[in-house]
Amino acid sequence: MAIVVSDRPSGRLTEAWRFCVGTGRFELALRRDYQDSLALIQRDIGFRHIRGHGLLSDGVGIYQPYEYRGARQVRYGFGYVDQVVDAYLELGIRPFLELGFMPSALASGDQTVFWWQGNVTPPRSFAEWAELVRATVGHLVDRYGLDEVRTWPIEVWNEPNLKEFWRDADPEAYHHLYEVTAHAVKEVDAALQVGGPAISPGSDEWLVRFAEFVTDRSVPVDFVSRHAYTSGPAQHVPFGVHQTLQPAGHLLEQFAQPRQALAGSALAGLPVHITEFNSSYRPDNPIHDTAFHAAYLAPVLAHGGDLVDSFSYWTFSDMFEEVGVPTSLFHGGFGLLTHRQVKKPTYHLYAFLARMGDEILARGDDHLVTRDAGGRVSVLAWAPVDVTQPYPSPASGGAHRVQLSIPVGTAQTTSAAMVRSTVNEEAGNAWTAWAELGRPRSPRPAQLDTLRELAEPVRGHRSLPIVGGRVELDLTLSRHEVSLVEITAVADETPPWWDESRLLGHER
Amino acid sequence: MAIVVSDRPSGRLTEAWRFCVGTGRFELALRRDYQDSLALIQRDIGFRHIRGHGLLSDGVGIYQPYEYRGARQVRYGFGYVDQVVDAYLELGIRPFLELGFMPSALASGDQTVFWWQGNVTPPRSFAEWAELVRATVGHLVDRYGLDEVRTWPIEVWNEPNLKEFWRDADPEAYHHLYEVTAHAVKEVDAALQVGGPAISPGSDEWLVRFAEFVTDRSVPVDFVSRHAYTSGPAQHVPFGVHQTLQPAGHLLEQFAQPRQALAGSALAGLPVHITEFNSSYRPDNPIHDTAFHAAYLAPVLAHGGDLVDSFSYWTFSDMFEEVGVPTSLFHGGFGLLTHRQVKKPTYHLYAFLARMGDEILARGDDHLVTRDAGGRVSVLAWAPVDVTQPYPSPASGGAHRVQLSIPVGTAQTTSAAMVRSTVNEEAGNAWTAWAELGRPRSPRPAQLDTLRELAEPVRGHRSLPIVGGRVELDLTLSRHEVSLVEITAVADETPPWWDESRLLGHER
Amino acid sequence: MAIVVSDRPSGRLTEAWRFCVGTGRFELALRRDYQDSLALIQRDIGFRHIRGHGLLSDGVGIYQPYEYRGARQVRYGFGYVDQVVDAYLELGIRPFLELGFMPSALASGDQTVFWWQGNVTPPRSFAEWAELVRATVGHLVDRYGLDEVRTWPIEVWNEPNLKEFWRDADPEAYHHLYEVTAHAVKEVDAALQVGGPAISPGSDEWLVRFAEFVTDRSVPVDFVSRHAYTSGPAQHVPFGVHQTLQPAGHLLEQFAQPRQALAGSALAGLPVHITEFNSSYRPDNPIHDTAFHAAYLAPVLAHGGDLVDSFSYWTFSDMFEEVGVPTSLFHGGFGLLTHRQVKKPTYHLYAFLARMGDEILARGDDHLVTRDAGGRVSVLAWAPVDVTQPYPSPASGGAHRVQLSIPVGTAQTTSAAMVRSTVNEEAGNAWTAWAELGRPRSPRPAQLDTLRELAEPVRGHRSLPIVGGRVELDLTLSRHEVSLVEITAVADETPPWWDESRLLGHER
Amino acid sequence: MAIVVSDRPSGRLTEAWRFCVGTGRFELALRRDYQDSLALIQRDIGFRHIRGHGLLSDGVGIYQPYEYRGARQVRYGFGYVDQVVDAYLELGIRPFLELGFMPSALASGDQTVFWWQGNVTPPRSFAEWAELVRATVGHLVDRYGLDEVRTWPIEVWNEPNLKEFWRDADPEAYHHLYEVTAHAVKEVDAALQVGGPAISPGSDEWLVRFAEFVTDRSVPVDFVSRHAYTSGPAQHVPFGVHQTLQPAGHLLEQFAQPRQALAGSALAGLPVHITEFNSSYRPDNPIHDTAFHAAYLAPVLAHGGDLVDSFSYWTFSDMFEEVGVPTSLFHGGFGLLTHRQVKKPTYHLYAFLARMGDEILARGDDHLVTRDAGGRVSVLAWAPVDVTQPYPSPASGGAHRVQLSIPVGTAQTTSAAMVRSTVNEEAGNAWTAWAELGRPRSPRPAQLDTLRELAEPVRGHRSLPIVGGRVELDLTLSRHEVSLVEITAVADETPPWWDESRLLGHER
Repeated sequence: MAIVVSDRPSGRLTEAWRFCVGTGRFELALRRDYQDSLALIQRDIGFRHIRGHGLLSDGVGIYQPYEYRGARQVRYGFGYVDQVVDAYLELGIRPFLELGFMPSALASGDQTVFWWQGNVTPPRSFAEWAELVRATVGHLVDRYGLDEVRTWPIEVWNEPNLKEFWRDADPEAYHHLYEVTAHAVKEVDAALQVGGPAISPGSDEWLVRFAEFVTDRSVPVDFVSRHAYTSGPAQHVPFGVHQTLQPAGHLLEQFAQPRQALAGSALAGLPVHITEFNSSYRPDNPIHDTAFHAAYLAPVLAHGGDLVDSFSYWTFSDMFEEVGVPTSLFHGGFGLLTHRQVKKPTYHLYAFLARMGDEILARGDDHLVTRDAGGRVSVLAWAPVDVTQPYPSPASGGAHRVQLSIPVGTAQTTSAAMVRSTVNEEAGNAWTAWAELGRPRSPRPAQLDTLRELAEPVRGHRSLPIVGGRVELDLTLSRHEVSLVEITAVADETPPWWDESRLLGHER
Repeated sequence: MAIVVSDRPSGRLTEAWRFCVGTGRFELALRRDYQDSLALIQRDIGFRHIRGHGLLSDGVGIYQPYEYRGARQVRYGFGYVDQVVDAYLELGIRPFLELGFMPSALASGDQTVFWWQGNVTPPRSFAEWAELVRATVGHLVDRYGLDEVRTWPIEVWNEPNLKEFWRDADPEAYHHLYEVTAHAVKEVDAALQVGGPAISPGSDEWLVRFAEFVTDRSVPVDFVSRHAYTSGPAQHVPFGVHQTLQPAGHLLEQFAQPRQALAGSALAGLPVHITEFNSSYRPDNPIHDTAFHAAYLAPVLAHGGDLVDSFSYWTFSDMFEEVGVPTSLFHGGFGLLTHRQVKKPTYHLYAFLARMGDEILARGDDHLVTRDAGGRVSVLAWAPVDVTQPYPSPASGGAHRVQLSIPVGTAQTTSAAMVRSTVNEEAGNAWTAWAELGRPRSPRPAQLDTLRELAEPVRGHRSLPIVGGRVELDLTLSRHEVSLVEITAVADETPPWWDESRLLGHER
Repeated sequence: MAIVVSDRPSGRLTEAWRFCVGTGRFELALRRDYQDSLALIQRDIGFRHIRGHGLLSDGVGIYQPYEYRGARQVRYGFGYVDQVVDAYLELGIRPFLELGFMPSALASGDQTVFWWQGNVTPPRSFAEWAELVRATVGHLVDRYGLDEVRTWPIEVWNEPNLKEFWRDADPEAYHHLYEVTAHAVKEVDAALQVGGPAISPGSDEWLVRFAEFVTDRSVPVDFVSRHAYTSGPAQHVPFGVHQTLQPAGHLLEQFAQPRQALAGSALAGLPVHITEFNSSYRPDNPIHDTAFHAAYLAPVLAHGGDLVDSFSYWTFSDMFEEVGVPTSLFHGGFGLLTHRQVKKPTYHLYAFLARMGDEILARGDDHLVTRDAGGRVSVLAWAPVDVTQPYPSPASGGAHRVQLSIPVGTAQTTSAAMVRSTVNEEAGNAWTAWAELGRPRSPRPAQLDTLRELAEPVRGHRSLPIVGGRVELDLTLSRHEVSLVEITAVADETPPWWDESRLLGHER
Repeated sequence: MAIVVSDRPSGRLTEAWRFCVGTGRFELALRRDYQDSLALIQRDIGFRHIRGHGLLSDGVGIYQPYEYRGARQVRYGFGYVDQVVDAYLELGIRPFLELGFMPSALASGDQTVFWWQGNVTPPRSFAEWAELVRATVGHLVDRYGLDEVRTWPIEVWNEPNLKEFWRDADPEAYHHLYEVTAHAVKEVDAALQVGGPAISPGSDEWLVRFAEFVTDRSVPVDFVSRHAYTSGPAQHVPFGVHQTLQPAGHLLEQFAQPRQALAGSALAGLPVHITEFNSSYRPDNPIHDTAFHAAYLAPVLAHGGDLVDSFSYWTFSDMFEEVGVPTSLFHGGFGLLTHRQVKKPTYHLYAFLARMGDEILARGDDHLVTRDAGGRVSVLAWAPVDVTQPYPSPASGGAHRVQLSIPVGTAQTTSAAMVRSTVNEEAGNAWTAWAELGRPRSPRPAQLDTLRELAEPVRGHRSLPIVGGRVELDLTLSRHEVSLVEITAVADETPPWWDESRLLGHER
């Protein structure tokens, strides 16, 4: 039985799904492959902000102490920062600043995180830290203007609730850092947006304590942030891991948590940003490369905007390097794109959403129906996944059916043009194609070309009759499929003299 | 039963199929849409030469008489010529010069051909004509160098056997023109290549007489040329025609005719160029836009190179204007591309051929199998068309099957990666998609984007086992389908620890 | 004695000087060289609108009558129009529509103008003309939206006061055409802007009669338009003319004429557009290529905006063809650019103006001083020209001096950086360089590269002390020079340890 | 008195000057700014090879040991290598491979060099090192083909004679490394070119001992290499140094040393590559940014090719990071270009040389005269610098004069076109312009635009009479000037009717 989609919108598809996207560490943005990848992403998806680690780490070169005439001085080097932000703005994307990690010359210890050694200890001098924050934010305001920088959320540190990211995961030390930092930001301009505490899943109590702290001490806070992941413990193989996953609904539960936790508090009305989310938090889990992953996340993208102001996919590209330089093109990286711009299925999930309208006509466990200002109706349909068991073979019922009766066109229109774009285990699936090619670690140019071609969704098209202002859609989805169906009522310009039967080879 | 393809090449796929392509009149090459289209063509197909009418017509501005101090003088204006040839060479394509039509200021009459009014009368002064030829060819040699221009065939006039193209279709007048012109060319440089008579189908006797003429009078001739078309009389509708077609084999018969006719003559050993060919000779016959057309021409491309040195598809783009400015994006133009770069199925036939190797392993009525220097095997397969009746509906047997046993890989390789690219009534078929959109005459930008997306071949991929050094290919082709199948033996880099069953959602 | 420039703006530099620019006939915009040239122009100058002839002429292919079932019908072909307007909008420029000339199939006679044969006779049927106007404007509104098209002025015909452009220069016939056209435009949308009468100089009475006519019959009119030129009779040489010129002030007088003529009339408050202006009205007068021309027009650009809403330089490029295809790169064309993008001195005059601020600080016979929002002061200085006699040789006093005391910076700033960009008989003068190269008619690629290099302004730079909030500027201009001087107060970041004298080769 | 330049070439300008250029560490080549800079360099200069450190260092990710089933294994990651080499080849430049430094997981110690911490200790296992070399070179051969890689010189390590670059500067340890490495390279293919010892100045004895070692043990060696610098000890200021310099002739002496030292040895006939040269060896010496530097190096470029097969400017770009991330756009970096593509005077010295012909007509202390195949004569002239004292002010004689009588053209040609491109303290000097702007550390976009404009050479042009087959050139060079003068005989196409005196404003 087809679901009868109402002509009346039930809600709006907010921009939460594309408000922000994650990136590998700041200076990776200097790379050409990175910028080429981001250009593609922006053309097809169009994220609004981008957030990653390491703005203040040594590789960016901001904090440079020196001696002159016997006194210690600091010179700030903003050349790389400017190069990156100039590139971002050219590409139509804005920073979502994360202030961290610690410049080693300002650090109180030598604990580091990641292959690239981000220092995760508090500053030796909070006064110098405050000066560094003021100098950096102030420089950005000078160069890009106050109107611009006021639109960039500024988040203090990353996952201080984890020992790997903040020495001893010490909440008091974080609260002090937050307080000093928030004031330093506001000294540059009171209308800049600052927030935190950027916690990882599993430390829900941090949020409540953070709220108490900032309320008690009247510390400025413009938004709250946390992360969301659904993976279990890492089972290691060389250069990779496998992990169990919780159902995708757990992501939505994590999204909902801050609003629930802060209800009634002074922070209750603030914007909530999920500044990182993904299935697995590991940059070497092959699940990220699969069609399964797109189908797994489809309901999250369809529903997440009801719960938060943004949820930022971690990360847009496989260019990352937290566990080292990858040894293989596909290696389970977070990216929507591999190095060198091979699109993964989850890329298309995002690109599909970017082609949808903002009026929600219907939404369910396997579909989202929207309409845009021009009357085009878009259907995102997906085959729900089961994370608890292997997938049944198609012969035993792998196909999934979605039937919808969709309002389209006007009284005058009698047919609609339908375009269907499909990603599944074969279609738009460079990862399975790469497996068939023998999993080449550094594919040759001709293989890269093949992978890029096979990474494109398969597209089909048909004419559908409009009867009673509706078209009947009956979609069969294969294993792990995500399809976008675009339906447009047709204004027929066929001339009266056109006679298909006069065409050679016409269909009888 | 599968055809067993030999491992030993049976021949070479020569470059005859891409030695030359046709174009609308010379100055259309000044247009951006033209150059964008040609850039795409060159990237995907890579023709070697390009030939069209009108080099000497008024729009190019070469021949400009004036008076000075009471005497008639001629100034040659080569600005547009240089602009076009510079662009051609940048795009990796060379002129196949056609000397014509007549500058109106040099013409002996005012008969014109086409909407754009090419003058088709002999020169008032053969001496001035010879001077014009010498000046033009000499200028090209000065600018581009003798080594370069010696590679450009130079053809004298176009279809002088038709009254529309040469006043009274007078053979003696043409022979005189040819003689004067050939000598003028050789005066610039004896190693330049000159030829003719560029006749249309249906005047086979012209070739013999031309051979006699040049032999009798020792006129230089470096190649002979003719055209080939298979369409019947035009049945007009507004802004278009329908026509019957002869089977595609008639094209091959026309290709073969010059060698047969000239056997035993002094011209027997010369290169033969089919300087125009197509199904219909009309630029407003919708057949050019269809998948039927690609399937119809597939055997011609597969076999034509055995018969001639080149056969030049007339024309690469719909930018043409011989019957006026088109009123609709699709209008039955000759082009492999429409205006604004929407690819037609025949574009892909050429692009498929451009990806094949040059060793022919097998060739038949519905397939061509080649291998390239790297060992990749390519199969071009097509569903044969019947020009005499409408196509049976798929239910009654529209599908066509091609089974091939193909040698690939070495003793060590156990699997092959197969990529299939398909064009048929739905796949890679912007024309049927345009029909579904209501045949918009000047599509909006979003419609153009849709058409360009749907104009791409549908691509699939699979792993095939190599058994005994062979893969078994069993292709089912739908109505009017042309498919390219590329098969590569795989060097497997899968690490020993890879276990597909540990992947979530893996297939049981 | 230096002129002391006030710190208080005396007025604003309006956008009149770049509101519109002229172009060769409509379909030339399909060319790549045209679009490349316009892209350069838009990057360096940034015109807002573009106006040319021939939108409705045969080459654009809009009006296409045909017979079907015994009845005459018209099909409108908008493919080329859309291609051009799409390109314009991509390049950041909008049409200033000129409705004309007559499609030959709708014309009442066969009188044509120009080498490209624009038909200048009234329509056979005013009803069909009205339908053509509605269809064309309506199509543009459909494709580009009402908000967009309402910003495009729509002018009716071109120079109907000349017999060459309108049969018999018949004012009544023009008034009728205007009335029918204006109503047709307003039937599409009442807020579209329509105007006329687009007259050439020397028929001032037309404007008054036009005002009476539209007032008497309540015909819609949103702006009035005329042209301005200062050249005397053409003295012909082959492929060119020489002409005397009136002083540039005569252009300003012509600009002022419509407001004067219409004062007190019902049209008194309407916008006035000079829809064409130049020195010579001939596209083959070498004066257009010279530094003289830039210096001649400098005061017109500096002062014209006080008099009218726009004055449109005729034309941006030498791509033109009204008197045929040019036989030489430099040929006295109107263009700011030659074919293939060699910049002429007048190009730089415009590019200089585009870098100026919009606050006018001072203005005189040889200078314009402006300031922008960031505090940068720009000086345009020119050597006044004398049109009545040859230029004295430099030895006898060719140099011209401009001395200005200019307010810049704040109390804290002590130095200003000055950049001077110069065009004169040698600097930024591709035309004199081309003469030195032997006036090659179709320069070779290496010569084009040389010309493009030598076409760039010569740039110098200096540090100027700020004393009492002022810098003293003392400019010596050579023959026919135009210079742009940009002055910025400096925020000095030189570190305390910098010691110039430690640099090898430092100046003693 | 003018020097009379002979019409007979005295020698050829070999490609030694552009055979190779230096670069910052390998993975910097992943950056967009790097590739944009290199693209510019290749367009204007066209180096053949590029050499830098760090191919085998951790940041490139080649050497990745891991455990599997209890055993230590190594996986080679070539993704970044391929990305860089793909980019190089696209840009028309080939690697000059330097094998080093040591992957930390293979190192026998933890001594590092540079801010980016290249490990400079011998391998823990020479067998694993040999395997690493074979794997790396073998991979490159697989991907790029043997014909290609055979053209890439392969150098073993960098400056082993310095303790900073090789533990204890131990020659025996280096010889062992060289032997193992050279054999490993030759095992991949015997025709690959391997060489060393890549020593810095001041250790001339190393070369002799290296020759003895390889001769005694029959170790393969295809070329010898050393470096050349002329700077004295570093006098530090914050973020910079000053140094004295020896006269430029000392560079030529260093170039000559290997041939002299190896005369009579078994290595006497081998190619000699100066794989690094510059004035100062410090990446923070402002001398690199100056016009002085271009004038200082001009004679080295003019003469160096007589002495060696290549001399490689160290380095093409300021992107470098050996002493950290620069804090200022201009910071005394080695680059021909700053970050973000501001050209330094030395860039133009190279670009000038790239426009010269390969026949040497004359050469002296302040000039080089060449002719190309087309007859164009080019003069590189420079004002000799004195490194021992400050430059006299122009008033006391700063100008330098070069007078040359130059053969050009044929008996028929009567005039030559001369184009002069100039770089000096003002012209083409972004560094002095940057000083005037207040030395902004991270210039704003508008300042970068200004710097890029002012970094272009100033160009002038004149017509010179040819008398007796010669033009007389009398050049006055200002302080630290380098000028390129290009002289072409003119084929005059001026029409007979051209009369300059009819032009308005013509010069009397």
